[in-house]
Amino acid sequence: MSAPPPFGPEFKAALRDLMLWRRDVRRFRTDPLPDADVARLIDLACVAPSVGNSQPWRFVLVESEPCRRAARESFARANRAALDGYDGESRALYARLKLEGLHAAPVHLAVFADEATGRGAGLGRQTMPETLRYSVVGAIHHLWLAARAEGIGVGWISILEPGVVTRALSVPVGWALVAYLCLGWPVEEHLDPELERAGWQARATPSGFILRR
Amino acid sequence: MSAPPPFGPEFKAALRDLMLWRRDVRRFRTDPLPDADVARLIDLACVAPSVGNSQPWRFVLVESEPCRRAARESFARANRAALDGYDGESRALYARLKLEGLHAAPVHLAVFADEATGRGAGLGRQTMPETLRYSVVGAIHHLWLAARAEGIGVGWISILEPGVVTRALSVPVGWALVAYLCLGWPVEEHLDPELERAGWQARATPSGFILRR
Repeated sequence: MSAPPPFGPEFKAALRDLMLWRRDVRRFRTDPLPDADVARLIDLACVAPSVGNSQPWRFVLVESEPCRRAARESFARANRAALDGYDGESRALYARLKLEGLHAAPVHLAVFADEATGRGAGLGRQTMPETLRYSVVGAIHHLWLAARAEGIGVGWISILEPGVVTRALSVPVGWALVAYLCLGWPVEEHLDPELERAGWQARATPSGFILRR
Repeated sequence: MSAPPPFGPEFKAALRDLMLWRRDVRRFRTDPLPDADVARLIDLACVAPSVGNSQPWRFVLVESEPCRRAARESFARANRAALDGYDGESRALYARLKLEGLHAAPVHLAVFADEATGRGAGLGRQTMPETLRYSVVGAIHHLWLAARAEGIGVGWISILEPGVVTRALSVPVGWALVAYLCLGWPVEEHLDPELERAGWQARATPSGFILRR
């Protein structure tokens, strides 16, 4: 290909729908996800942009029961501690929220940034070294959108202890946990985020987020 | 809408093309980008996922010459310092690279994370507070892909001094710079990253980035 294909009005409308219907999924069916589907999603993650073309994304398919249990237990501890930080109505609401799908999801995918990589030779990250981890976040968003197009749900669990999970997975030195993802077929589809539907936090109007200088 | 539209094989193939043809653009035409186009891209950025539905993304349209000059000068200083970190062939190659399009791009868009936001009430970021900034990165990737579908190029400049640029833009306390973006019509289209084409860093095979545990 020497020129990009035309992205017409129909595609653009469908892309918008894809972004609107992408959700953080916490309710999964337990049936397995074909290996080939997961591999295809990771392939698309790996064409995300990265600082200095460093490609720092590293993927750990968490398949063994001890490793998956370590993630579930870490969530349980971190979630209990988080609950203790709320009082009154917020506490009661928080306790009712469904915040992860670790038990049901057929695929656990931990995503790391390899901070020891030599790829890219440090280009672009002398003054903003955090862009290495940001590159991994970009890869996750490629995967998330590609999954949504396939009808596959993705949930990002940030309520866990990154050090504990990293040690449990015995990853190489220099790998930093960016995200712990659940993948699988969603039980239900929604246009609104779970936290909005549950009354935790509504969405604001984008115009309020823009300044001119 | 109570159910997502079907995303068929044609859409999925086009989405893959979109991701493959998304580039970090450094060569822009100087003709202006309609305000409505930029607003539409920001709208799509704002439906990205965010930790606790905190919506921490903040956008600064950098329009005044003093502010734009501050960004260009910061790049020039940071780039000179980066060059001094390389020797021999790497240094010569680095000096030849085109790493930004700050002069030609009609739109400069600085993107911040509002670390002081009360939205989301801290949900999901007690143990991994960096997920607030990661949420902003997700919004940037929505914008980037939506721009590519419109034929609009995006370039992310990380070679600058975040403190200097933040001060120059006089943003509210608590806003942390995540990215400084250039937007505009690209002069040329490529399927391969500039840094690969220039011989700085080739792309690796995704299978080498996967472990099983």
